[in-house]
Amino acid sequence: ARDDIDAVYIPLPTGVRSEWVIKAAQAGKHVMCEKPCGIDVAETEAQLAACNEAGVQFMDGVMFMHSKRLDALRETLTDGSIGEVRRIHSAFSFNGGDDFVSGNIRMHSDLEPLGCLGDLGWYNIRFNLWTMEYAMPKAVSGRMICGAARGDSPDQVPVEFSGELFYENDVTASYYCSFITANQQWAHVCGTDGTLRVDDFVVPFFGSEAKYTVSNTESNQHVCDFNMEQRDRIVSVKEHANAHPTAQEANLFRNFGDLVLSGETDPKWGEITLQTQQVMMACLESAKQDGARVEL
Amino acid sequence: ARDDIDAVYIPLPTGVRSEWVIKAAQAGKHVMCEKPCGIDVAETEAQLAACNEAGVQFMDGVMFMHSKRLDALRETLTDGSIGEVRRIHSAFSFNGGDDFVSGNIRMHSDLEPLGCLGDLGWYNIRFNLWTMEYAMPKAVSGRMICGAARGDSPDQVPVEFSGELFYENDVTASYYCSFITANQQWAHVCGTDGTLRVDDFVVPFFGSEAKYTVSNTESNQHVCDFNMEQRDRIVSVKEHANAHPTAQEANLFRNFGDLVLSGETDPKWGEITLQTQQVMMACLESAKQDGARVEL
Repeated sequence: ARDDIDAVYIPLPTGVRSEWVIKAAQAGKHVMCEKPCGIDVAETEAQLAACNEAGVQFMDGVMFMHSKRLDALRETLTDGSIGEVRRIHSAFSFNGGDDFVSGNIRMHSDLEPLGCLGDLGWYNIRFNLWTMEYAMPKAVSGRMICGAARGDSPDQVPVEFSGELFYENDVTASYYCSFITANQQWAHVCGTDGTLRVDDFVVPFFGSEAKYTVSNTESNQHVCDFNMEQRDRIVSVKEHANAHPTAQEANLFRNFGDLVLSGETDPKWGEITLQTQQVMMACLESAKQDGARVEL
Repeated sequence: ARDDIDAVYIPLPTGVRSEWVIKAAQAGKHVMCEKPCGIDVAETEAQLAACNEAGVQFMDGVMFMHSKRLDALRETLTDGSIGEVRRIHSAFSFNGGDDFVSGNIRMHSDLEPLGCLGDLGWYNIRFNLWTMEYAMPKAVSGRMICGAARGDSPDQVPVEFSGELFYENDVTASYYCSFITANQQWAHVCGTDGTLRVDDFVVPFFGSEAKYTVSNTESNQHVCDFNMEQRDRIVSVKEHANAHPTAQEANLFRNFGDLVLSGETDPKWGEITLQTQQVMMACLESAKQDGARVEL
């Protein structure tokens, strides 16, 4: 392998990705890998084993993990603003249109067998894992609402998918992802004392700040007079969207680069990739059983 | 029966409600009934049969059905703003606290056997039915996330519940209701071209207008430059919250009173009550089978 390359970014289709992640690692290159990292858990484990053996850094390309908004969100989650987390909802979708369904590589089961679940649901599941500080759900449920495929695809891929995650203490999460529903990328975290809402958790809306809303709505009643009072607080973090040096995408590559240059690898990134893949595959397994609970 | 009473409002606990709805109907009184109307479908059918036989009006106490905001929402749903409906999400919860769980009648299985599903989920299900213009789902799934009971209750009642509805053409809806999660009452309707969000679909926030947000977020990309652009439009309807004469609660009793005085009964109200009860009981049946699909 040549000496003037330290790291590679692997955006190849999921169906052929694992082979190249492993080859890159074996050549001593640090790896930034697109998601879903493997077509199944075994592939992701093989990638991580190869990186571990070669002593190179592995990181998946989930941009929002590198947004400064997450620091603010964590503070809100731990400072009592919404109490104990009880329920997480999220939705991530875009409507690819007919051209997408008939021509995009994400509609080919050899290239992207996980369809919208791999492309979009990866973010929903990661957001759940992040919110729960990487506790694994005890069990999951998933439903493939509909599937489709382009003409040359051997099988259908998920085009619309919903899932539910069951954590300890009856904390639950539900998510929805779709290639045929309009753009949306919202997440709600509902606690015992309030809720928080992020309207753009994956790709922040164009602007110079990343925001979210904390709600502590109150119902007040005096005899026959009642008021449902809205108490919303908007939290804003200075961080540009799009191609600005402060954007989460820039942070992603900066953080990866810093790790590579530090000479120390951080196993956390590979571990959360594996967790994401494990939860995703369990959801898909459940979908094959029409939503039956699958233990983790 | 006395002649100087035309109609009765029946807010009794669900466990004893049906008997009095039927007695009231048999006495020739029009009936405004709290929800859930029956502990099961058979009870609701018996109530409607009694009202039908006596020629009296039946209506359930779902206030938001009488909000002028629904007319605006229907226009948004049909004018192409969000395209074809693909997914509905809603959540309705409040945190009753320890006193509620240990003492409220809603925690007693003889009085309110449907717990949070009957008290809150009724609204989620009704909102779904309304959005779908009263098409019934083909099937449903439900999960009792947790149950609890006050000390003198024979059985547990649902305290946290989630459900999913499956309509024709892969349109789906998910809902969540809870007695132990902070106040929230939001609904999202996600279409092929946009989404709409109501932050207070059950009890409008205190103020002189009822609102919702229509979003047509766009993702624009030019080579390496991309922007996720927020395009939100807030629709506002003049309608006071709380005890004002224009409030939905006032409209509820005004509409009921007008029907009673008109001398003609409108069967629509009983029919949508029965649909709501049917969907709810199917969700509960599914929950008893740990989320298995139940056909309708």
